[in-house]
Amino acid sequence: MNNFEWHNPVRLVFGRGTIPRLRELVPPGVRVMIAWGGGSIRKNGVWEQVIQAMAGRDYTEFGGIEANPQYSTLMRAVAQARSEKSGFILAVGGGSVLDGAKFIAAALEYPGAEPWDIPEKHAKVEKAVPLGAVLTLPATGSEMNGNAVISRLETRQKLAFGSDKVMPVFSILDPETTYTLPARQTANGIVDTMVHVFEQYLTRDTGNPLNEGIAEAVLKTTIENGKKVFLSPGDYDIRANLMWSATMALNGLIGVNAAHDWTSHGIGHELTALYGLDHGQSLAVVAPNVLRHKRDAKGVMLARYARNVWDIGGGDAAKAAMAGVDRTVEFWNSIGVKTRLSEYGIDDRDFGFIAGRLCGADGKLGENGDIGREDVINILRLCI
Amino acid sequence: MNNFEWHNPVRLVFGRGTIPRLRELVPPGVRVMIAWGGGSIRKNGVWEQVIQAMAGRDYTEFGGIEANPQYSTLMRAVAQARSEKSGFILAVGGGSVLDGAKFIAAALEYPGAEPWDIPEKHAKVEKAVPLGAVLTLPATGSEMNGNAVISRLETRQKLAFGSDKVMPVFSILDPETTYTLPARQTANGIVDTMVHVFEQYLTRDTGNPLNEGIAEAVLKTTIENGKKVFLSPGDYDIRANLMWSATMALNGLIGVNAAHDWTSHGIGHELTALYGLDHGQSLAVVAPNVLRHKRDAKGVMLARYARNVWDIGGGDAAKAAMAGVDRTVEFWNSIGVKTRLSEYGIDDRDFGFIAGRLCGADGKLGENGDIGREDVINILRLCI
Repeated sequence: MNNFEWHNPVRLVFGRGTIPRLRELVPPGVRVMIAWGGGSIRKNGVWEQVIQAMAGRDYTEFGGIEANPQYSTLMRAVAQARSEKSGFILAVGGGSVLDGAKFIAAALEYPGAEPWDIPEKHAKVEKAVPLGAVLTLPATGSEMNGNAVISRLETRQKLAFGSDKVMPVFSILDPETTYTLPARQTANGIVDTMVHVFEQYLTRDTGNPLNEGIAEAVLKTTIENGKKVFLSPGDYDIRANLMWSATMALNGLIGVNAAHDWTSHGIGHELTALYGLDHGQSLAVVAPNVLRHKRDAKGVMLARYARNVWDIGGGDAAKAAMAGVDRTVEFWNSIGVKTRLSEYGIDDRDFGFIAGRLCGADGKLGENGDIGREDVINILRLCI
Repeated sequence: MNNFEWHNPVRLVFGRGTIPRLRELVPPGVRVMIAWGGGSIRKNGVWEQVIQAMAGRDYTEFGGIEANPQYSTLMRAVAQARSEKSGFILAVGGGSVLDGAKFIAAALEYPGAEPWDIPEKHAKVEKAVPLGAVLTLPATGSEMNGNAVISRLETRQKLAFGSDKVMPVFSILDPETTYTLPARQTANGIVDTMVHVFEQYLTRDTGNPLNEGIAEAVLKTTIENGKKVFLSPGDYDIRANLMWSATMALNGLIGVNAAHDWTSHGIGHELTALYGLDHGQSLAVVAPNVLRHKRDAKGVMLARYARNVWDIGGGDAAKAAMAGVDRTVEFWNSIGVKTRLSEYGIDDRDFGFIAGRLCGADGKLGENGDIGREDVINILRLCI
């Protein structure tokens, strides 16, 4: 087992009727900017609950943070927060709103002239305005980590950054807020949760069976409830299990001393940036083929996944391993997520460009740092 | 699934060679009291590592905190810390030293005349001196929670208290420090870890399969490595897995929305207070019989435990459930822990006294609050 550090100070408040707890959780004596997204919270009652809990408090609002939050949008929020002297960002929405709020929080305290340096040049986040969250879409784990992914339309970039300075002080997760999610977003969230686990668990045996067991529990809970949620979108326990699993998939715990891959996310981000694929869709296309391409290096863990999550045993471990991947694809198809580029109308014309952006001169991806330009192209070919 | 809150800000630093990180983790500009126990750290090199890391820092020492830390000992430490103006407690040792340090930290800031009120009268801990830990014995989970158990010889009491104010700021866990543990302490730690899980997981189905999966992963990892550790006490991965499992068993995670029992701990504390049984020994005697006594109310989860942890299936769930308990007892016997009161020379003469202390007038124990005086006596009778 490798050495590790585990430190996650986010206060997670989980359950029905928890949004009013904003009253005690939002720090007093500070102007709050409530940041939200495309408007679904205005229709499903979440906005009203938040505004009611914030009654009598000093707050302003910034709406319109889009899926794959755009740098230009977020910089408008930064300008507004600066002029209004906001001292706390309250993100209300899904992973995109939370990621956007993290960028706003970091940009507000960034001493340089160009906050885009944070994702692009990995400029260190030394300080950030504190933030909290009300999560309405289980998927990204952003509610309990310090990661964010920001997009920039004019350069067709989608880049990540991470800092413990942008971990939410608190996150409120009320599964009832997810009852009205469109099926597509629910399905995308299921894929995203599973691939977050894959990127940490389906790498190599790190001698930490407890964490592998937790990863498997997240996957099994997500699959079992993911099979049921579309028939019973208003079932509290199903929604609660999906929401809690999504958080646990990427709050750092299962990754503390795993070998991290993130190839699927890297390639997936490019597909989103270039073609506008949903994040979950991009992962559903790429992840199975990263696993197939790396079937040998990932063989031990793939066989374990097939056995412990899908109950696929038998003597031939390599065959079982691939059957586990196939079963994953079948499951995603069964919940309405397409898993081939051609199904999204995408052909091979940009494969070289994507591989070049990801792998630069000699850059390599993956838990073993051995996925280069040619590998990315080969993986993408499998995706067609 | 019930509502829950999950907030654990302890910084856990895990792995070989991590004790020197005290240099950065202990806050600067404050006088540190290094608190330790019976002297094993003086023999196994841990004390030297700590002192070396603290070179050039302003620190004093308080040694001699015993197993089942005594109020009188801890109050001497409080007096010393007060006169020396210590502003940080660094606990170096096992759960007893950590628990003792938590009491010292809370007592130093306690405004009342009698800090014993904290465990006895549940006086609220509003403030505490900050503390950190170097853990040398995996068992209690004290390194990542705000709980402590303190004993008082003259009244033969062993009482618990809990507060997030006494959560360690950091805890360093180097599995190599556990290589030289006596077999008895290693075995006790294995029992303690497992019973911590039992008290949260073997209660009733709370509709949270992810947490139940984590609980099972802790149990399986503990059992699998517990079977090997006595043959290979210097195997790093075995020690690391036991240490990480012990932390995860009681850092709050698996208990976030479980139904909590703690009957075995309650009765066990009395056996320790009256007869000096090791904490692990007391649990090994009591826990199986709490489970047998509550076989009906705990039936669903007992059958699940038997199936998922011991691979005991079959048509008769009630029979499988009891077979799982029997297998647990066999395992503990196999690692040298006796599981009957008579094996420790204890008879039934104090059963009424114990039941009376635990259940007072009409007090009840257990996840369903239905274990009264007579039940405690019946459980103890099963323990003979």
